[in-house]
Amino acid sequence: MKALVYKGPGRKEWADKEKPAIQRPTDAIVRITNTTICGTDLHILKGDVPAVTDGRTLGHEGVGVIEETGSAIRNFRKGDRVLISCITSCGSCANCKRQLYSHCADGGWILGHLIDGTQAEYVRIPHADNSLYPIPDGADKEALVMLSDILPTGFEIGVLAGQVAPGDFVAIVGAGPVGMAALLTAQFYSPGRLVMLDTDPNRLEVAKQLGATDVINVADGKAIETLRAMTGGTGVDVAIEAVGIPATFDICQQVVAPGGRIANVGVHGKPVELHIENLWIQNITIAMGLVNTNTTPLLMKTVQSGRISPAQLITHRFALNDILKAYDVFSAAAKEKALKVILKADA
Amino acid sequence: MKALVYKGPGRKEWADKEKPAIQRPTDAIVRITNTTICGTDLHILKGDVPAVTDGRTLGHEGVGVIEETGSAIRNFRKGDRVLISCITSCGSCANCKRQLYSHCADGGWILGHLIDGTQAEYVRIPHADNSLYPIPDGADKEALVMLSDILPTGFEIGVLAGQVAPGDFVAIVGAGPVGMAALLTAQFYSPGRLVMLDTDPNRLEVAKQLGATDVINVADGKAIETLRAMTGGTGVDVAIEAVGIPATFDICQQVVAPGGRIANVGVHGKPVELHIENLWIQNITIAMGLVNTNTTPLLMKTVQSGRISPAQLITHRFALNDILKAYDVFSAAAKEKALKVILKADA
Repeated sequence: MKALVYKGPGRKEWADKEKPAIQRPTDAIVRITNTTICGTDLHILKGDVPAVTDGRTLGHEGVGVIEETGSAIRNFRKGDRVLISCITSCGSCANCKRQLYSHCADGGWILGHLIDGTQAEYVRIPHADNSLYPIPDGADKEALVMLSDILPTGFEIGVLAGQVAPGDFVAIVGAGPVGMAALLTAQFYSPGRLVMLDTDPNRLEVAKQLGATDVINVADGKAIETLRAMTGGTGVDVAIEAVGIPATFDICQQVVAPGGRIANVGVHGKPVELHIENLWIQNITIAMGLVNTNTTPLLMKTVQSGRISPAQLITHRFALNDILKAYDVFSAAAKEKALKVILKADA
Repeated sequence: MKALVYKGPGRKEWADKEKPAIQRPTDAIVRITNTTICGTDLHILKGDVPAVTDGRTLGHEGVGVIEETGSAIRNFRKGDRVLISCITSCGSCANCKRQLYSHCADGGWILGHLIDGTQAEYVRIPHADNSLYPIPDGADKEALVMLSDILPTGFEIGVLAGQVAPGDFVAIVGAGPVGMAALLTAQFYSPGRLVMLDTDPNRLEVAKQLGATDVINVADGKAIETLRAMTGGTGVDVAIEAVGIPATFDICQQVVAPGGRIANVGVHGKPVELHIENLWIQNITIAMGLVNTNTTPLLMKTVQSGRISPAQLITHRFALNDILKAYDVFSAAAKEKALKVILKADA
């Protein structure tokens, strides 16, 4: 089969690779029909994630069809259409039993990281009974690819951890795919103001179409004053950090109101200076984490009922065979006006 | 009357001062029967809190007897015995209506800070209907002084914000009065292990008497390894920071388990380096804030029912007239083995 293989920092190849086989009774083999590329894949390609070794197939998002199941699999059979969760979870370790799937003792984020991933014609999914979700008849497969990672990440780590409540003033810093996922899912809870901050005018325009009540281009360095003025000096109820650099975290800590919440969704590579000398008295909460994907069934229902349309995040489509072109486009996201690129194996 | 007056950095005086008078219909004048000294008062005396100006009466804790009430006061009358909350709250602003009394638009921490405080024979309490609590007949007045500030602070900002749950592994860093208050009130929720960390062998011994299952002297610099070993490498469910310096915050961020909570109770004067490059993936929450004292009635019931005995935190007693001696003892807390010193006006 073909797979997108990491060949060390800066190198990747659309290569021939052996089709995966069942290794444990709890495995399933899925034939990929649709997958995508994540910002994390670009980090890996830069060499930022040293746990990923030469020869690894990348990708942790996708939908497909069950090709083969291990002897212990109860929930799926050959031919079933499935959504692949970016988080693999056994369902029975101590962390899984409190739905902390991100820290499953025999899983977590392993796809395209510690084991071969979804940017391939076939993928082996460990603990498939707990790590795959059935796709309802008639569902939009492409839209559901957004539910592998970005929708639950924006929802769980941004909206739920930020405790977005009706009427809240919510600021989302970073209009990338995960920031947009927070923007879409924050609207479940009817915030009063839902403000997107970014440096890219195109992404801010998209944010408006996706439900932002206001947008702020942070390029002028006045985002903090602007947000303070918009809130009458009080600050925001919820600040969602969806970039992962000190400057954007800093905006959040400077604009959060007393009693407010900072929800960090961004993946950080460096420490940040926490201004606890000002914040200790402000009765704030800072949450951060890797997605558990325990809200995937809930999100699936919101997509099926038309409450949200994650397909709006898809800007480009390619045949799976053209994945190298897709990487080029996604790597130049601002220039290409790209959010999520969909790869179609059955194109 | 006599009052402990701040005279600029490093200077204080047990001075004659005019007895306070009703200024607004919502005020009450309280004759102090018992008060105490807080670590914050020592910070003020060092000049660390520039909002406190020369001539200010210090103190934000105490119990007493209503001497006079403004025309709008409904809940109290002359002669009533009352507990004074360290937080003054109007009860009707937007923040008060969500019990964020710490950020009352016309209150918050003002006693002994922005207005004259409780280390005096009399004190004026604004918004007295919401900022005073009736003392039940037969209650231990001295014990209730602990409810002005330290008990609700340890409970709300440590235990509740840290979401201590039955069976949890809880570490409290700092065995001062507020750390001890967290230690006492954490036991409401039946943690599995309740570990106190400090450098002072005497305070660690007291912590054992107050219910710590284990104590760790951090003087050897091995606290992090010790806690990791005690938790089988996982880390603690809840880390309560009760000192307010970067080194103790750092212990907390290094020992918190995936899915865990850091509750910062300490008052910080400097930023801390937040290792978000490691923590973003750990699904943790960091909470911090000033006490709201909205749990004061609850805590009063636990004291009245004998569930906790905050009198255990009292190590020294002085006549109010001897407050300068009491300051000397409290300023040398380690040497004097002091936790809370009680000042008795009716001694």
